[in-house]
Amino acid sequence: MKQTPKKIAIVGSGLVGSLLSIYLRRLGHAVTVFDRRPDIRTIVFSGRSINLAMSNRGWKAMAEIGIEDDIKKIAIPLDKRAMHVVGKPMYFQKYGKDGEAIWSISRGILNRKMIDLAEKAGVTFKFEEKVWDVDLPEAKLYTGETEKGEWEEYKYDLIFGCDGAFSRVRHKMQRRSRFDYSQDFIDVGYKELTIPANADGSHKLDAHSFHIWPRGNFMFIAMPNLDGSFTCTLFMPFEGEISFESIKTKEEAQHFFKVNFPSVDQEIENLAEDFFKNPTSAMVTMKCYPWTYWDKVALVGDSAHAIVPFYGQGMNAGFEDIYILNEIIKKHGDDWESIFQEYQKERKPNADAIAELSYRNFVEMSSKTADPRFLLQKKIEKRFAKKHPDKWIPLYSRVTFSDRPYSEALAIGDQQEKIMQHVMELPNIEDKWDSVEVEERILSLL
Amino acid sequence: MKQTPKKIAIVGSGLVGSLLSIYLRRLGHAVTVFDRRPDIRTIVFSGRSINLAMSNRGWKAMAEIGIEDDIKKIAIPLDKRAMHVVGKPMYFQKYGKDGEAIWSISRGILNRKMIDLAEKAGVTFKFEEKVWDVDLPEAKLYTGETEKGEWEEYKYDLIFGCDGAFSRVRHKMQRRSRFDYSQDFIDVGYKELTIPANADGSHKLDAHSFHIWPRGNFMFIAMPNLDGSFTCTLFMPFEGEISFESIKTKEEAQHFFKVNFPSVDQEIENLAEDFFKNPTSAMVTMKCYPWTYWDKVALVGDSAHAIVPFYGQGMNAGFEDIYILNEIIKKHGDDWESIFQEYQKERKPNADAIAELSYRNFVEMSSKTADPRFLLQKKIEKRFAKKHPDKWIPLYSRVTFSDRPYSEALAIGDQQEKIMQHVMELPNIEDKWDSVEVEERILSLL
Repeated sequence: MKQTPKKIAIVGSGLVGSLLSIYLRRLGHAVTVFDRRPDIRTIVFSGRSINLAMSNRGWKAMAEIGIEDDIKKIAIPLDKRAMHVVGKPMYFQKYGKDGEAIWSISRGILNRKMIDLAEKAGVTFKFEEKVWDVDLPEAKLYTGETEKGEWEEYKYDLIFGCDGAFSRVRHKMQRRSRFDYSQDFIDVGYKELTIPANADGSHKLDAHSFHIWPRGNFMFIAMPNLDGSFTCTLFMPFEGEISFESIKTKEEAQHFFKVNFPSVDQEIENLAEDFFKNPTSAMVTMKCYPWTYWDKVALVGDSAHAIVPFYGQGMNAGFEDIYILNEIIKKHGDDWESIFQEYQKERKPNADAIAELSYRNFVEMSSKTADPRFLLQKKIEKRFAKKHPDKWIPLYSRVTFSDRPYSEALAIGDQQEKIMQHVMELPNIEDKWDSVEVEERILSLL
Repeated sequence: MKQTPKKIAIVGSGLVGSLLSIYLRRLGHAVTVFDRRPDIRTIVFSGRSINLAMSNRGWKAMAEIGIEDDIKKIAIPLDKRAMHVVGKPMYFQKYGKDGEAIWSISRGILNRKMIDLAEKAGVTFKFEEKVWDVDLPEAKLYTGETEKGEWEEYKYDLIFGCDGAFSRVRHKMQRRSRFDYSQDFIDVGYKELTIPANADGSHKLDAHSFHIWPRGNFMFIAMPNLDGSFTCTLFMPFEGEISFESIKTKEEAQHFFKVNFPSVDQEIENLAEDFFKNPTSAMVTMKCYPWTYWDKVALVGDSAHAIVPFYGQGMNAGFEDIYILNEIIKKHGDDWESIFQEYQKERKPNADAIAELSYRNFVEMSSKTADPRFLLQKKIEKRFAKKHPDKWIPLYSRVTFSDRPYSEALAIGDQQEKIMQHVMELPNIEDKWDSVEVEERILSLL
């Protein structure tokens, strides 16, 4: 359906805000993006930014506007996990079928690229302009130097809040009656660390793997960068016996890395130094509803649904919001009330599903990946999936290498889990895991 | 232990704020209460305020400071429910044992009384002074005419946030990292209505009963006032076939009351008029954690734990916070960090328990009180409790007529429910509900 050009404001120039601006611009709208921070393209960043894993849903949103190939140039495909388990040599776990991979990409580099593309498409950016208040029924924004100082008023037809987990736009919606909201922090924090490149610019670990050191209630991961370095993340409880709080000196940090991560032995100096230089950050699951206000305001991405990062789906879910929103816009044309209603009804159950899956993966990645029974279960599933690819798509693949709804992935995943629970109860399953009996048992339960 | 007098601010002069001020004043502290609203004692109110049900926990907090008798003078004891079920004559359900009752009391009248008592005790009140910001580490308050205008700064040793479900103090804590928070609205709203006294000042319905008209997914209740009137509440879905939204004209309202509540037939005119005069309000369960900031700031009452009103425990839970806090203060003296830590650890599970119980009662009161099997189960429980009062205290009594922790009531209530599920599965339970077999079955399961 036809679109009448509207005057649209987007709050937030992050990944979701800048991608949405390109989509809306292509539909013929006049788009202005506000951000309280300076233009990320003008900031010298060290490469120490958090790495993201772009997978199917993200790529689909890129492809729709023809920028998939451009973005692939700044990403590295990872087709497997590299498992660094205590007492075992490092081994690989393939993510999916041949050709399936997640792509390691630097948040900063991607964001710069997206803003470039948005500007080229005719989007206006207003950096270092802080939005303090939003008039929801009038779609007005108020910006200014300080909360108590003079404010400038802007009037739009539509406003999109793409301003992240601590969204100012949502904050305003939250004060209305009958707005459901929750923020739940996990007791585990994270800290970014770096493994630099070799002197010749090559990677010190396998460059096409997502490296994981699971250690029970803490975990270390590493993702490659184009420059040969790895961006690493240490996930660990804030408080307790082994925790961020318990490591107080450089010597304690060195000891911690030496004992727990011997395979990065030669990096101890670096890591221990980074440990005290970089902040410890918290992780939150944020849910809310509704996501829209009438035909005026809508939340997209983390402002509507922030999740813990353990499924690598935060950015992908936000980009999928935009892809789906665009499909709905095409259907309803100028009827923005219907567009927003359908958008939130369609996306909310999927956002809840990926929040749940991400939280479960937090438990799985940190504790279960070293549990022999869990690994056996995964081995059985994998064997079955390989033999019957039409009958068993693993949950990870449904989430990562598919564009079917997250809620469907969660529901089918729960069914599969129930079947596997039955299978795991078979006597001597350890000995006959690869038998015809087990295979037929699964077939009978499907 | 001894208390060094502190300079304390309380935000909110409602029931919890004014009671807490009396407790703290008695410990020797200098107490100032801020409220954005005018002094409730200077406002002419119509008697159309929401009625509260004071029960054991509330009375205990009154008795501790010797004001129980004063307050009982402005309350009416209700020892039973009066059930107005479709197709049955009205019947009574006693609440507890002889002498056990909940007390109907007007929020406005109680609040006036409490502020009087607080002033008499030496508390300073600053009405119509709006708190816009709180400096948590410094225990400073900022007040002013408008959010953007000039602010006055006040410095205290301690600040208590008693400013209700939409607390400004909590709002400030909420912006910190690792602060868990949720607000969940139910799809049912409520509206206050009134049944006036007879011409001679007497009550039109039994004055010592809590009147309930359960109607499946909506419900009408009435609580007596001292002046012969009843404060009534209609609970009903916001949207849907039978809903606030669906009643658009006075005729529709009259028809609605006539069809559904024939026993208040002669009040139709009033009720239909009130229906459009009074607002429809929403109900929320609000949870958060932590409740305190260091040794500086603490939340008490609804600001820490707002619940839906279906167990009549909102005020009682807030008053119990104060009673328990006072006990902990006596134990730790000047060590406010330990006081606040113990306070929140002790009260949080109990607040969560009464939130859960209140939500469950919402389901029970509106739908199950007309279900024959549910009523049979209650009848069996009641019979058994009467015969074995040492072995079976009903959940309602544990919550309402006890000062044991809410969390204990919830846990024991769940055990009792499990036992009753087994009992209800006995064949022909309808015919032998009062048999020795059933009694012995319960005894064996206990």
